[in-house]
Amino acid sequence: MNAPVNSTDPLVLFMPSGKRGRFPVGTPVLDAARSLGVYVESVCGGRATCGRCQIEVQEGNFAKHKIVSSLDHISPKGPKEERYERVRGLPEGRRLSCSATVQGDLVVDVPQDTVINAQTIRKAATDRVIERNAAVQMCYVEVDEPDMHKPLGDLDRLKAVLAKDWGWKDLLVAPHLIPEVQKILRKENWAVTAAIHRDMESSRPFIIALYPGLKNEAYGIACDIGSTTIAMHLVSLLSGRIVASAGAPNPQIRFGEDVMSRVSYVMMNPDGQGAMTAAVRQAVNDLIGKVCAESGVDRHDIFDCVFVANPIMHHLFLGIDPTELGQAPFALAVSGALQFWAHEIGIEVSRGARLYTLPCIAGHVGADAAGATLSEGPYRQDRMMLLVDVGTNAEIVLGNDKHVVAASSPTGPAFEGAEISSGQRAAPGAIERVRIDPETFEPKYRVIGVDKWSDEEGFEEAAKATGVTGICGSAIIEVVAEMYLSGLISEDGVIDGALAARTPRIIENGRTFSYLLRDGQPRITVTQNDIRAIQLAKAALYAGTKLLMEKQGIEQVDTIRFAGAFGSFIDPKYAMVLGLIPDCDLAEVKAVGNASGTGALMALLNRDHRREIEHEVSKIEKIETALEPDFQRLFINAMALPNKVDAFPKLSEQVKLPPRKVMEAGADGDGGSRRRGREGRRRG
Amino acid sequence: MNAPVNSTDPLVLFMPSGKRGRFPVGTPVLDAARSLGVYVESVCGGRATCGRCQIEVQEGNFAKHKIVSSLDHISPKGPKEERYERVRGLPEGRRLSCSATVQGDLVVDVPQDTVINAQTIRKAATDRVIERNAAVQMCYVEVDEPDMHKPLGDLDRLKAVLAKDWGWKDLLVAPHLIPEVQKILRKENWAVTAAIHRDMESSRPFIIALYPGLKNEAYGIACDIGSTTIAMHLVSLLSGRIVASAGAPNPQIRFGEDVMSRVSYVMMNPDGQGAMTAAVRQAVNDLIGKVCAESGVDRHDIFDCVFVANPIMHHLFLGIDPTELGQAPFALAVSGALQFWAHEIGIEVSRGARLYTLPCIAGHVGADAAGATLSEGPYRQDRMMLLVDVGTNAEIVLGNDKHVVAASSPTGPAFEGAEISSGQRAAPGAIERVRIDPETFEPKYRVIGVDKWSDEEGFEEAAKATGVTGICGSAIIEVVAEMYLSGLISEDGVIDGALAARTPRIIENGRTFSYLLRDGQPRITVTQNDIRAIQLAKAALYAGTKLLMEKQGIEQVDTIRFAGAFGSFIDPKYAMVLGLIPDCDLAEVKAVGNASGTGALMALLNRDHRREIEHEVSKIEKIETALEPDFQRLFINAMALPNKVDAFPKLSEQVKLPPRKVMEAGADGDGGSRRRGREGRRRG
Repeated sequence: MNAPVNSTDPLVLFMPSGKRGRFPVGTPVLDAARSLGVYVESVCGGRATCGRCQIEVQEGNFAKHKIVSSLDHISPKGPKEERYERVRGLPEGRRLSCSATVQGDLVVDVPQDTVINAQTIRKAATDRVIERNAAVQMCYVEVDEPDMHKPLGDLDRLKAVLAKDWGWKDLLVAPHLIPEVQKILRKENWAVTAAIHRDMESSRPFIIALYPGLKNEAYGIACDIGSTTIAMHLVSLLSGRIVASAGAPNPQIRFGEDVMSRVSYVMMNPDGQGAMTAAVRQAVNDLIGKVCAESGVDRHDIFDCVFVANPIMHHLFLGIDPTELGQAPFALAVSGALQFWAHEIGIEVSRGARLYTLPCIAGHVGADAAGATLSEGPYRQDRMMLLVDVGTNAEIVLGNDKHVVAASSPTGPAFEGAEISSGQRAAPGAIERVRIDPETFEPKYRVIGVDKWSDEEGFEEAAKATGVTGICGSAIIEVVAEMYLSGLISEDGVIDGALAARTPRIIENGRTFSYLLRDGQPRITVTQNDIRAIQLAKAALYAGTKLLMEKQGIEQVDTIRFAGAFGSFIDPKYAMVLGLIPDCDLAEVKAVGNASGTGALMALLNRDHRREIEHEVSKIEKIETALEPDFQRLFINAMALPNKVDAFPKLSEQVKLPPRKVMEAGADGDGGSRRRGREGRRRG
Repeated sequence: MNAPVNSTDPLVLFMPSGKRGRFPVGTPVLDAARSLGVYVESVCGGRATCGRCQIEVQEGNFAKHKIVSSLDHISPKGPKEERYERVRGLPEGRRLSCSATVQGDLVVDVPQDTVINAQTIRKAATDRVIERNAAVQMCYVEVDEPDMHKPLGDLDRLKAVLAKDWGWKDLLVAPHLIPEVQKILRKENWAVTAAIHRDMESSRPFIIALYPGLKNEAYGIACDIGSTTIAMHLVSLLSGRIVASAGAPNPQIRFGEDVMSRVSYVMMNPDGQGAMTAAVRQAVNDLIGKVCAESGVDRHDIFDCVFVANPIMHHLFLGIDPTELGQAPFALAVSGALQFWAHEIGIEVSRGARLYTLPCIAGHVGADAAGATLSEGPYRQDRMMLLVDVGTNAEIVLGNDKHVVAASSPTGPAFEGAEISSGQRAAPGAIERVRIDPETFEPKYRVIGVDKWSDEEGFEEAAKATGVTGICGSAIIEVVAEMYLSGLISEDGVIDGALAARTPRIIENGRTFSYLLRDGQPRITVTQNDIRAIQLAKAALYAGTKLLMEKQGIEQVDTIRFAGAFGSFIDPKYAMVLGLIPDCDLAEVKAVGNASGTGALMALLNRDHRREIEHEVSKIEKIETALEPDFQRLFINAMALPNKVDAFPKLSEQVKLPPRKVMEAGADGDGGSRRRGREGRRRG
């Protein structure tokens, strides 16, 4: 490897990274890759036994790269590689890069799917290829036998060979291993695989697990603890692939539906925090059991765990009383990233496994938002990106590579169907799409679990199985937006009672009116109060967003990312008609699913991403909307549909918006006074 | 502090270190001390509340130093210092160096006995003043209150102020503190004292404990786990003083008297190791309770623990099966120093306390020998020092600042009175001193607990309380040496049966003879077998020593240190007459008591001593006597009194040794064949 390189040496190009360099004939391909910083896994340290370092030679004339690559330009299989192929099998075209050497110009493909021991590969959580640099590395070594002349201890000789073969200096050892070292070393005749954990370069590496012989498996979990759902990926740290993903309800729901009610529960019950902490840890352990059972992985082969969560879930998981987060100044007990032994908080994985939590951004912008920020990377690009995660508390991040700002806004549970008279969670039987004919004011809708629209033949028959039970979040957005587009409500959100003369679907309820969406069992209506609830929620989100836009000094965002389940189901067009998000090219509005979980996954597979998000979070400007004098004004403007003052030129190109007119606001049109205090509405 | 220094600035000399420097008028004396590297404790960070930084001005004309020091040359007490004096009291002449400033030339005394909160000061374990640089530092800070504009977590703001006020970077936090941080910070209005642990510079510092307000106490324990006795010092990490010392029997004795029988117990009982590990940990916890009760210290105020032990005790304490140490190649599970949370092995002190074990030198030269080596420091001086710790297994270290060698030698339990027909442990009633009249062969002796010699009037009366029950280790040395000096035994250790004609004290037992020391109840004799046992033991020690001398290429040692209780009671002259130690100026033979414990104390009070002994142990040349071809020859020579070939010129100047003659060795005179295999005699 240290031979002088000259311009007549063969040229090797690695794909997909595109990294290239010249190497003397005879250089092992693995060494060539490493010297270029191309990540190729290896557990056995070049002994051709682990099979992790597979590569594939691309044959042909790569004119663009000026390389003619050929199978003749790599050494033929030697005895070690042939033995591996015979015993373990090697897919067609694959070579072990530790054994194969450079003989001429090569284009080398580093496959991302090196599957060993028939791991079950599930769906990809993300299309992105995450460059790997896990905090845990498996290192096979052959330890010197004890020698009375040089009476170094067994552990000390293990450390010495880990330094010699793998370059680990100043190794610490997990204390639980100390009594085990001697037996493990002797079991396979002094051959062992050590799991080494190193997170920051400034921290000393740890031997966290030790196995006789070659241990060719190592897993990690990436987990997002949401208020409602806990989502987990089980990932092979050696192949980088997700081997199982699963979700489970957060059992804390029995203590309170949303986070604020859980904080109240803690305040009112002396053992409340302990009970909720125990519940969520148990749920995480159960979920680990589930992903392991699905993939046939032993939970004790999990060596690293990354968690994201909103601030209150984060605190409860860590055993911290979240009371302070329920009242100004919303002080986090800890905002920075944490890293410690997983067993310290009772997570049942390898005894030496480490646990890492992403940093929280602010009192209501949690490690989940940090995860989403890491995943979507507003700071990695120059366009102005709006990233919103709409839960019962919206987390809003806005920025580009120059500056990122973040805030939360108390949207409340209306978007999830709560506080809505006919609202319900997304489940079979829930209305999920709505259209209203602007001439007749007749609606049509679709129901989860039924293929047909309600005006298509056979709909009622098809809907019998589930019933039509209520309106879920996405349909609430649509029905209010459609009511606005069809003129049923004014830009101030007031249902036009005069239209009761034109359609029986407008129904009087004392001083206000409702719109009858479906006359059946149950009867599904949209009331004036429902519309107000949606207005309050969307105004909170928009005002928070607008505040961040003012901080950034911009009138327009370039691109919008909806994180979370809510974003995956709503139609961006209707969200914009409602004025939930600012004007933007509709093609630039994208749902990104569980971006928080993807961020956790990135932090699991590459510790550089931990440093990246820790650094970015420290730079993010945090805006506390409650302290901003402009917020009330922006909120009141945002009560209107889509907005009292902001224009939506790009939306107008695609949707014909009603002409602006201002009706009397009605009895409860004063949005500001309806906010009922921030604390009471903080929910995540 | 950063003001330019010029030659007209006042000169300040610190005693006892002798460090001096010039400082601008107005420099706090504490800052002056620190800038010179003079250790002055401070917990409160210069707020004049902890009282730890006391100094005393020496008045007078110090001609040698060209300093006229006067009380006028230090600032008068300011309001903060006066407040401290009023509330807490300040001894006459004492000043708080954080508040007092330099006004002119000064000689400043840094007292080593700054006593705060009326600590009970017990005896000094050692005369030596150990320069302090403990791994634990108490740091008082006032944390910024939470701020919605800068939503750093409570813990993160704590870290920030610890970085600002005390310079701590990259602080980690003990996980158990995470749920506690918020309450602790709020209890005394954001004023807290953090206990920070940092051992190696390459490891990140840890917040290991946190207290509301000023926490002005911090303790550590230094503990030597011997096979027979566990000895412990409780030390104030802030004053450096020992506040209590205690010892307790090692309860493992019930599993086996010596270490080899304990290893056998482990081999034969599946739960043997677990039971012995639990027993020794319980004993350590009990002893912590004892030293804490004696000094009124709360065991949860202990933040650091240093342990030394022989290899088998070391392994059992750490939960390691010691079986490998019972058989060649005597492989240690771990030889290097270890450091981890004390709670990991069930030590009941502060939940965040750390535990450090000194390195072991070799399979039979343990962390106790490393402690003694640190304490006596052969490598710190240029004379050739022999350091021996005589237990049932002798640990021998020989060296100077150029090179140090070490070995163990299986002396067996004879020196402790076992294997001796009338032998017993040192206890009231045991004979501890013996003289024999070379003319009459009549003995006189002294007994533990009785002031008079046996030939003095009233001895029998005085001895009635205890009886005369046996011979302890020191008297066994003396009686055999006196028998040799008086001609009762030859240089080969054979009792001269012909002398039975001259004295009734020589008694025939079949083919061999005994010497009657006391005719009473019990009858106390020295048998030929007793002498053989002592010869074997002393020959093992001498041969080991001699082997190390050959390795060093020396004929003579310059100075000898006896570590351990045995060394404190034996008379160096008789040890040398017996040929237990090589010839040396008798004035240079010193007993140093529990040097292992002193070494542990040094490592507790100054983490630089940890690096020092880790480094030295790695450099020590380890000699395995069993592998040395010369050992048998040296052993056989050493069976003779004092030695078959080695001259004792210095001893001869002070003691008239019998002329050399060689008698027939007798039936069992073949020392070599009596060694019965090394493994069976390995004891510690």
